[in-house]
Parts: sequence; C-alpha cells; structure tokens
Amino acid sequence: MHQVTIETGIMEANDHLAGHNRELYDEYGVYVINLMSAPGAGKTSVLEQTITRIKDDYKLGVIEGDLMTTMDADRMSALGIPAYQITTGTVCHLDARMVHNALHNFDIKGLDLLFIENVGNLVCPAEFNLGEHLKVMVYSVVEGAEKPKKYPVMFHEASVVLLNKIDLIPYAGVSLEELRRNVYSVNPEAMIFPLSCRTGEGFDAWIDWLRTHLNAKIAGKGLVGKS
Amino acid sequence: MHQVTIETGIMEANDHLAGHNRELYDEYGVYVINLMSAPGAGKTSVLEQTITRIKDDYKLGVIEGDLMTTMDADRMSALGIPAYQITTGTVCHLDARMVHNALHNFDIKGLDLLFIENVGNLVCPAEFNLGEHLKVMVYSVVEGAEKPKKYPVMFHEASVVLLNKIDLIPYAGVSLEELRRNVYSVNPEAMIFPLSCRTGEGFDAWIDWLRTHLNAKIAGKGLVGKS
Repeated sequence: MHQVTIETGIMEANDHLAGHNRELYDEYGVYVINLMSAPGAGKTSVLEQTITRIKDDYKLGVIEGDLMTTMDADRMSALGIPAYQITTGTVCHLDARMVHNALHNFDIKGLDLLFIENVGNLVCPAEFNLGEHLKVMVYSVVEGAEKPKKYPVMFHEASVVLLNKIDLIPYAGVSLEELRRNVYSVNPEAMIFPLSCRTGEGFDAWIDWLRTHLNAKIAGKGLVGKS
Repeated sequence: MHQVTIETGIMEANDHLAGHNRELYDEYGVYVINLMSAPGAGKTSVLEQTITRIKDDYKLGVIEGDLMTTMDADRMSALGIPAYQITTGTVCHLDARMVHNALHNFDIKGLDLLFIENVGNLVCPAEFNLGEHLKVMVYSVVEGAEKPKKYPVMFHEASVVLLNKIDLIPYAGVSLEELRRNVYSVNPEAMIFPLSCRTGEGFDAWIDWLRTHLNAKIAGKGLVGKS
C-alpha cells in the first residue's frame, strides 16, 4: 500500500510537469511525437528513414533518450537535424522532468515537429506522459505475434503502431495477420503500418498518413492531439 | 533527491527480501536461475528447449513472470514441468517480494533447479535481485550489435549471455563478432553462447556448460553462486 502511494505521487507529479511541457509545445506551435519501442525494434532506424523523407518540408528536431551513449543523437545530427541527447543512467524511461530539463538546453522555437525517442523498453515509457501530442510505437515483427496480449499497456496507449522488419517475416515464422489481430484486440483504434527500414516497403503509407496528420495539426496550430 | 531516497529504500527492502529467498533456496537445496531478456528475445522458447534437453536428469520447476496472461506457464506445464505464473499488471520486472509470495503457493521442495523467467524488459529486471544463484540473459541478435553499449546494466549483471536467433543473422545484417566484442566490453567475464531455438544450433554447448555447472553446484549443495 505504501509503495502504491509513492507510485501514485510520482505519476501525479509527472502528469503535472507533462502539462507544463505541453503548454510550452503549444506556445511555440511545435507538434511533438513520443516514439517508443522495445530495445532493438528499430526506433532510430525508423526515425532516420522518416526524417529523410520529410525533412525538406518540415522543420524538425529530435530529443533522444538512452541509458548511455550519444550514438542516436549522433545519427540524427548526421542527417542535419538538431538533436539533444538525454542519458538516463539506469532509468528505463523518459519522464516529463527529463524532457522539461532538456527544453532548457534545446531550443524548439521555430520547429514544426519534435520527435522524442524514448528509452528502449516495451513497458514503462508508456506510463510516463511527456506532454506529447501523439504516441507512436515501433514493434519488430520478429518479437512474435502474441506480444500485444502479453504487454498490452504500450499497444493500448499508442495511437500509431509501426510494425517494423517485415522483410524478416519469411524467415521468422511470424504471422502478420495474427499480429495485427492481436494489436486490434488491445487497441481497436490503432493505426497500423507494416514496414521495413531495410527495403523501404510500407514507408509510403506511413509517411502519407504522417504528412496528412501534421498538415491538419499545423493548419489548426491548436496542436491539441491525443496524448 | 527525494526520489533517490525512495528508490534506495525500495532497493534495500528488495535486497533484504532477496536474502530471505536465497536462504529458502539453499535450505531446500534448489539452484535458482533468473532468466531475463527484452520482450520477444525468446526467453520462453530457450527455456522450452533447455528443459526438454535436461528434464530427465534434474527435477525442474518454473516461476513465470508476465504483465498479463498465463501463456508462458501453460507452455511449461505442457512439458510436464510444475509451473507458477506471477502476473505483475503494469510492473515491468519481478521483485523479491513477488517471488517470495509465489513461494508460499508453489512448492520447490525436492527440486534441483528452479527457473524464474522474468518480465520481458532489458533494463529493470537486472536491478532487482530475486535471491537467485545465477543470472542468465537471452538476447536476440536481430536487436543489433550495439545494444550492450546502450543497455549495459543487464549485460553487465548476467553471468551467461545466450545470443538467440542466430539463424536470422544472414538476413538481419548483424555481425556476431561485433556483438560478442560489445558484450565483452561491458562484461569481460560473460559466458557467451550463440544459439537458435529454430534450428537447435548452439544448444549443445550451452547445455554442456549448464550440466557441468549444475552438477558442481549440486555436488557441493552449498549452492552459493554469484547473484
């Protein structure tokens, strides 16, 4: 009971700070996407491919979360995109305070779209609101078709589910249809895009959706998305 | 600062209970392996394959940890092995208390070896001691060669690293040698076994090591391993 109380307190404090973050995003007119996945599902590769396809049309920025190393921020900088690395040490997720602190050191003014790439973890990041407008998760089909049932929280929270590494389906013995059914079973509203960073397959559909979504948000500039 | 204090308290309480668990394991002469990995790396499949190969020679039991579902315990029961499922809800790791409570309901007396399959998560499980004698991690090579540097905690804590899904190496563009180097860079003492649950490749080496290790521990019956 004691532990539950502590946890509730941490969550409330996080939600409070996330609200501040959201005010800041909206004040600057920046749309914010929180990108989450298990480790190795391909978040950074999906981000690279996505950025390459839209960077001429939108002003982009990236905040990277990792336990250690600045590898991911370095990959973003190599694309010519301003990037800021948060290293969490042993903490398995980003929280609103870490992002808030990053915003003191990383200027988001003038951006259209800020990606926040979370720490690789299929559980905790989904519970910590960062004030983002949209939660997108990347899932590697190689992890198996049954995981949405076993790890329902993130699948339930994400508005968009990108099913990555579909080029490995013939070798991994995974059914895309079963996986899709299992995603819908925990999140009937999910937008699902199967794709492959290695072959580029499926990216057109995801990028088309993203552009349409962004253009509507930027036209409105109210930027009030589902968090 | 407040948060750090809370965290230290939780860790101390966990270590204390883990000590009790260890006393219980040792009292009953049961060797305990804590099996950890990211989601979808193949913990349960590795466990099935391992159990199938040794179950005629050792008395085995399994405690399964998952957020939801009893799928994994069902898979163990199908092998004729006593299994107990802990469902953690939204908690991303097993802790010593959950295991302690499980031991009130699951009789380990007479077992030689108890596997505890942790919740799929590459970060937090490594920090919560369950009183086990040995930490074994499963890593899917498809997750990439650089992850030991980005998620060093579990690679550092695990005495044994099983590199699973090596049958996918030709299609995934991952270098096993680079991965091996990166594991050693954070844990020079690691025992590394590349293997594949789909083809069975590599299991002989892992099972030989496990049998030798177990026989030495069982002969001594002091069961004092590295936790």
